[in-house]
Amino acid sequence: MPVDERTKDPSTGDYIVIRALENGVNLIGMTRGRDTRLLHTEKLDAGEVIVAQFTDNTSAMKIRGRAEILTRHGRILSGPDKA
Amino acid sequence: MPVDERTKDPSTGDYIVIRALENGVNLIGMTRGRDTRLLHTEKLDAGEVIVAQFTDNTSAMKIRGRAEILTRHGRILSGPDKA
Amino acid sequence: MPVDERTKDPSTGDYIVIRALENGVNLIGMTRGRDTRLLHTEKLDAGEVIVAQFTDNTSAMKIRGRAEILTRHGRILSGPDKA
Amino acid sequence: MPVDERTKDPSTGDYIVIRALENGVNLIGMTRGRDTRLLHTEKLDAGEVIVAQFTDNTSAMKIRGRAEILTRHGRILSGPDKA
Amino acid sequence: MPVDERTKDPSTGDYIVIRALENGVNLIGMTRGRDTRLLHTEKLDAGEVIVAQFTDNTSAMKIRGRAEILTRHGRILSGPDKA
Amino acid sequence: MPVDERTKDPSTGDYIVIRALENGVNLIGMTRGRDTRLLHTEKLDAGEVIVAQFTDNTSAMKIRGRAEILTRHGRILSGPDKA
Amino acid sequence: MPVDERTKDPSTGDYIVIRALENGVNLIGMTRGRDTRLLHTEKLDAGEVIVAQFTDNTSAMKIRGRAEILTRHGRILSGPDKA
Amino acid sequence: MPVDERTKDPSTGDYIVIRALENGVNLIGMTRGRDTRLLHTEKLDAGEVIVAQFTDNTSAMKIRGRAEILTRHGRILSGPDKA
Amino acid sequence: MPVDERTKDPSTGDYIVIRALENGVNLIGMTRGRDTRLLHTEKLDAGEVIVAQFTDNTSAMKIRGRAEILTRHGRILSGPDKA
Amino acid sequence: MPVDERTKDPSTGDYIVIRALENGVNLIGMTRGRDTRLLHTEKLDAGEVIVAQFTDNTSAMKIRGRAEILTRHGRILSGPDKA
Amino acid sequence: MPVDERTKDPSTGDYIVIRALENGVNLIGMTRGRDTRLLHTEKLDAGEVIVAQFTDNTSAMKIRGRAEILTRHGRILSGPDKA
Amino acid sequence: MPVDERTKDPSTGDYIVIRALENGVNLIGMTRGRDTRLLHTEKLDAGEVIVAQFTDNTSAMKIRGRAEILTRHGRILSGPDKA
Repeated sequence: MPVDERTKDPSTGDYIVIRALENGVNLIGMTRGRDTRLLHTEKLDAGEVIVAQFTDNTSAMKIRGRAEILTRHGRILSGPDKA
Repeated sequence: MPVDERTKDPSTGDYIVIRALENGVNLIGMTRGRDTRLLHTEKLDAGEVIVAQFTDNTSAMKIRGRAEILTRHGRILSGPDKA
Repeated sequence: MPVDERTKDPSTGDYIVIRALENGVNLIGMTRGRDTRLLHTEKLDAGEVIVAQFTDNTSAMKIRGRAEILTRHGRILSGPDKA
Repeated sequence: MPVDERTKDPSTGDYIVIRALENGVNLIGMTRGRDTRLLHTEKLDAGEVIVAQFTDNTSAMKIRGRAEILTRHGRILSGPDKA
Repeated sequence: MPVDERTKDPSTGDYIVIRALENGVNLIGMTRGRDTRLLHTEKLDAGEVIVAQFTDNTSAMKIRGRAEILTRHGRILSGPDKA
Repeated sequence: MPVDERTKDPSTGDYIVIRALENGVNLIGMTRGRDTRLLHTEKLDAGEVIVAQFTDNTSAMKIRGRAEILTRHGRILSGPDKA
Repeated sequence: MPVDERTKDPSTGDYIVIRALENGVNLIGMTRGRDTRLLHTEKLDAGEVIVAQFTDNTSAMKIRGRAEILTRHGRILSGPDKA
Repeated sequence: MPVDERTKDPSTGDYIVIRALENGVNLIGMTRGRDTRLLHTEKLDAGEVIVAQFTDNTSAMKIRGRAEILTRHGRILSGPDKA
Repeated sequence: MPVDERTKDPSTGDYIVIRALENGVNLIGMTRGRDTRLLHTEKLDAGEVIVAQFTDNTSAMKIRGRAEILTRHGRILSGPDKA
Repeated sequence: MPVDERTKDPSTGDYIVIRALENGVNLIGMTRGRDTRLLHTEKLDAGEVIVAQFTDNTSAMKIRGRAEILTRHGRILSGPDKA
Repeated sequence: MPVDERTKDPSTGDYIVIRALENGVNLIGMTRGRDTRLLHTEKLDAGEVIVAQFTDNTSAMKIRGRAEILTRHGRILSGPDKA
Repeated sequence: MPVDERTKDPSTGDYIVIRALENGVNLIGMTRGRDTRLLHTEKLDAGEVIVAQFTDNTSAMKIRGRAEILTRHGRILSGPDKA
């Protein structure tokens, strides 16, 4: 899987911001490519914030549990009830 | 299918944001290329949010079930009734 | 049909957003190139949303049936009556 | 007619949006190049919408019949009477 | 006349929009290059709309007859009287 | 005069828009290069509109007679009296 | 892991700004790549500010404890209670 | 003086717009390069408009006589009295 | 550690502005790369201002002590009390 | 002094606009490079306007005498008294 | 330390503007690179202004003494008291 | 000191505008590079304006004496008293 990475600059990719509003929020990274599999699950406790980029390996992120999410297209809340 | 990926930077592609408003919402990725086939189905329960990029393999995404969707061209609701 | 795809990044192409307002809405992709033929027909039931990019193979998309469409140039409704 | 397509990305070209306001609207693609000939005619029934890009083969599009047209330079109506 | 077309992307050129306000409107493409000659004349009947790009072969377009014209620099009317 | 035209895309150059307000308006293209000579004169009758690009051969355009002119830097009238 | 870094300019990457609102705030950098592991933990005392870029090695940052965070997508607070 | 003109696109250079407000206005192109000499003088009669680009050969333009001038930095009048 | 620096232009990187509001403010540069170590500590007395870029060697900056900080994402104060 | 001018496009450089408000205004071009010498003096009579680009040979321009000057950073008057 | 400077254009880098509000203001340039050392100290008397770019050799600038500073991120005052 | 100047275009660099408000204003160019030395001093009499670019040789400019200065970051006055 040798890739010529000449013009890639991973440090400038877009990111999303997630703030857990309860314990046990999951941020689940899913694999880029032909197969869409779970790549990594990051658990967040209430009040924790994660700022996460899309990467060469991650093309989708799933948020499970009550959280506030900031994206390029606006702000949205995850979880059963809107806080 | 060897492709020279020199100037591609997958981490900067646009993404859409989907928040399920009921259990069993489906986000269905469809294949890029001559054939348009189902590539992957991701199931979302009520309140789950997914942030998903278009990729080398996915050129269309279908949303089935009640959901709120944020895109470059605005916000739209899927599902039988506007909430 | 070997093409050097070096600077193409299919994941950043523009897309349109379609929300079916009735069952049986058709999104019809038409072929890019000298011949304009039907490439693929995707059927949507009421409330389903599809977010679709133009691709190397598709240079036009036709929408048949009542739907709400979001594009770079604004929002438009398809179907016999404006809802 | 071998062309090196290295930096072309057909999926990002601009498009126009056409909504037929009566049956039998024609979207006529005309050839790019020294000769300007009819390349393809797409017929639209009332309410149908087509989103069409300019391509390597098409440098002009003609709309015949009553339709609403969205473009980069604004919105315009075709057909004998302004609706 | 072999030209290396590597970085040209004809599908992204600017276009103008013309709506005929009477029968017999002429859109006349004129040749790019040392000689400025008539390349093609397209006749439009009342209500017909044409969306036309500048091309490798056309560097000027002349409109004869009553028409509404949308351009990058604004809207203008052709023809003897302002409607 | 062989020129490598690799990255030139003549179809995207800026243009000006001219509407003749009387018969016999002249649009005079003048040569690019060391010598500034008359390259072409296009005659316009009242109401005719021409949309003209700068080209590899033309670096100045002169308008003689009453006309309305739209440019990147605004709108101006040619001719003896402001209409 | 030899990488041709020709067009990368690490000094222009985006950054986030974090101000600790209590002692013991943690800024946890997580590894870019197939494995998402803890790369570095930086401890901040109340009032300390850190301005941190994404890098070739870091694609996510987690903030634990009460802090004010400035990002491209807005401002957010971490920690159990909104101050 | 062979120059590789690969990435130059003379048709997209900026231009200024000059409207003569009296007979005998002079637009004087001056040479680019080590020597600043008069390259060309274009005479304008009252009401004539010229739209002129900077070129490989011209790096300054002088206007003598009463005229209205539109530029990237705004509008200015030449000539002894402000009209 | 030979790096081809062809397209890097260190002089255009973003910078932050820090104004010390008391004696003994520390601006601590931290190393870019796999290890995050202290690279340099700059001490500022009250009223001193430093304008500092991110560099090839620095990917994070920590501010300890009362200071006013101007960044791309806004203004923030460091130190125990908001002044 | 052979220079590869491949990607330079002298016709797109920025320019300033100068209107002489009295006879004998001087626009003095000064040399780019290690030595800053007078390159050319252009004399302007009252009402004359000059539109001048920076060039490969000129990196500074001095205006002596009463004049109105339009630049990218705004408008300024030269000469002993503000008019 | 041979560096291929092909795409660097030092003349376009960002700059800051400093106006000394008292005698003896110091503008201290600090070295880019692994070691952060004092590179140059420029002394300013009251009323003197300096406009200074970041360079290949300078990645930080420190201002000591009362001064007004204009930057990309706004205006700030150095020195013990806000004037 | 042979430098490949391929993609440099000195004519497009940013500039500052200085208007002397008294006789004997000095504009002092300082050398780019490891040593910061005086490169050139330009004397301005009251009312004279200079428009000066940063260059390959100049990375800082000092203004001594009463003057009005226009920059990318705003307008500032040099000299002992604000006029």
